[in-house]
Amino acid sequence: MPKKIKIVIIGAGNVGFHLAMALKKNGHTILQVISRSYGPALELARLTDSEAENDFSRIRTDADLYIIAVKDDDIVKVAEKLPSLNVTIVHTSGSASPETLSRISSNYGVFYPLQSFKKNTPVDLSHVPFCLEASNEHTMFILKELASDITDNIHEIDEQKRKKIHLAAVFACNFSNYLYTVSENILKEEKLDLSILYPLIEETAKRIKHNSPAILQTGPAARRDFKTIQQHKSMLNDKKYLELYTLLTENILNSLP
Amino acid sequence: MPKKIKIVIIGAGNVGFHLAMALKKNGHTILQVISRSYGPALELARLTDSEAENDFSRIRTDADLYIIAVKDDDIVKVAEKLPSLNVTIVHTSGSASPETLSRISSNYGVFYPLQSFKKNTPVDLSHVPFCLEASNEHTMFILKELASDITDNIHEIDEQKRKKIHLAAVFACNFSNYLYTVSENILKEEKLDLSILYPLIEETAKRIKHNSPAILQTGPAARRDFKTIQQHKSMLNDKKYLELYTLLTENILNSLP
Repeated sequence: MPKKIKIVIIGAGNVGFHLAMALKKNGHTILQVISRSYGPALELARLTDSEAENDFSRIRTDADLYIIAVKDDDIVKVAEKLPSLNVTIVHTSGSASPETLSRISSNYGVFYPLQSFKKNTPVDLSHVPFCLEASNEHTMFILKELASDITDNIHEIDEQKRKKIHLAAVFACNFSNYLYTVSENILKEEKLDLSILYPLIEETAKRIKHNSPAILQTGPAARRDFKTIQQHKSMLNDKKYLELYTLLTENILNSLP
Repeated sequence: MPKKIKIVIIGAGNVGFHLAMALKKNGHTILQVISRSYGPALELARLTDSEAENDFSRIRTDADLYIIAVKDDDIVKVAEKLPSLNVTIVHTSGSASPETLSRISSNYGVFYPLQSFKKNTPVDLSHVPFCLEASNEHTMFILKELASDITDNIHEIDEQKRKKIHLAAVFACNFSNYLYTVSENILKEEKLDLSILYPLIEETAKRIKHNSPAILQTGPAARRDFKTIQQHKSMLNDKKYLELYTLLTENILNSLP
């Protein structure tokens, strides 16, 4: 049973929101939510029985852990505003270096949940991979204890690997989601709903657990069905969708054994 | 309880394989499997207690239904080889017109399962959408009866809509699967396994049932995190992956509200 600790959450966006909620739910105390925008801080503070703050000079200094959950571009800016604290401080980014936090405390690290968060979309974190990095063993121990409260899927991952994982996740998830949007827009032209594709989309995502996606590739490009490829291109009125179809088809054709 | 019928399967590829197996399992008789390549025909014939054939002049003429499951480019070639038959004849393509079958019989149509098939990957067809089109009501009735043996998800879909659905499926599924491959290759560079992304990939695919993917878009592009985008680009040594990252990122940026 990990020790219950006091936490300050910096950033009240999608990641900060879900981490704060999960940590609160697991018995930890959220002392304060700090965010540049007061509204989101207040909303999250209310949900986690904590204080809302938008002035970094009023940061609580009696917490055990500070979690910086802001976008990568802003991590350095936030770090510059924080006083030197003899505590544990982490960011939650897949791509940022933890070194920017070294000025604040010698106990710094990364607490990166490999999941895509949207505030209003509930998400079960119990099997979500958490990628942890820490400046020393003591900090790693604390982060592992904390993560084990939330998930059964914990990985010690160094910066280079974490950055690659994040890049891979952008392709597999952010970009796939965009393709679902393209798909939805194409169906809308015929007043059809994306729901007709749910079984296929879900099967495509599940199937890769048993075989490499390279082996599982299907579709007109995979079977060199140039007649269908040509027909599809002629159906794409939107130039940017046509460009995307062409590039992805070329890539698949080039990847065939 | 639909009537049990006698079926000839033309084409022993991924679609022909799974349809023949499902129809056999539901009590229908597969009379014959015809394929240009004798090996696959023989394999499927053995599994469905039917005859294998690679000579179209020896097609059985005593079947109730002929299912042409060959790639789009080959449907016309197959149709030209078949004699005029007073039966029901369908193809299984998302993109081909059924009119090419009109010379063979006046009872023709399309029996298009909206799923991606791989011979050695078992697939549960019971909720897979089947898109049906028929030259007359009698044929539509037969196709609906047959489809209802396999699935609870039947749609009467005209040619134009079906082609759009197929195009949308290429984006949502074939192209997403390719992105999973890219992702796997990126992870391999660090000796990491794609399995670390399974929870995220599955969640991304499931989440769109509750919200439009356009609303659910996350990632560096969605939050205009140009620092991370730049870092990702610098990490992509493979020119074709860089090109893809750039195009998809631009498209997401342009699609933001």
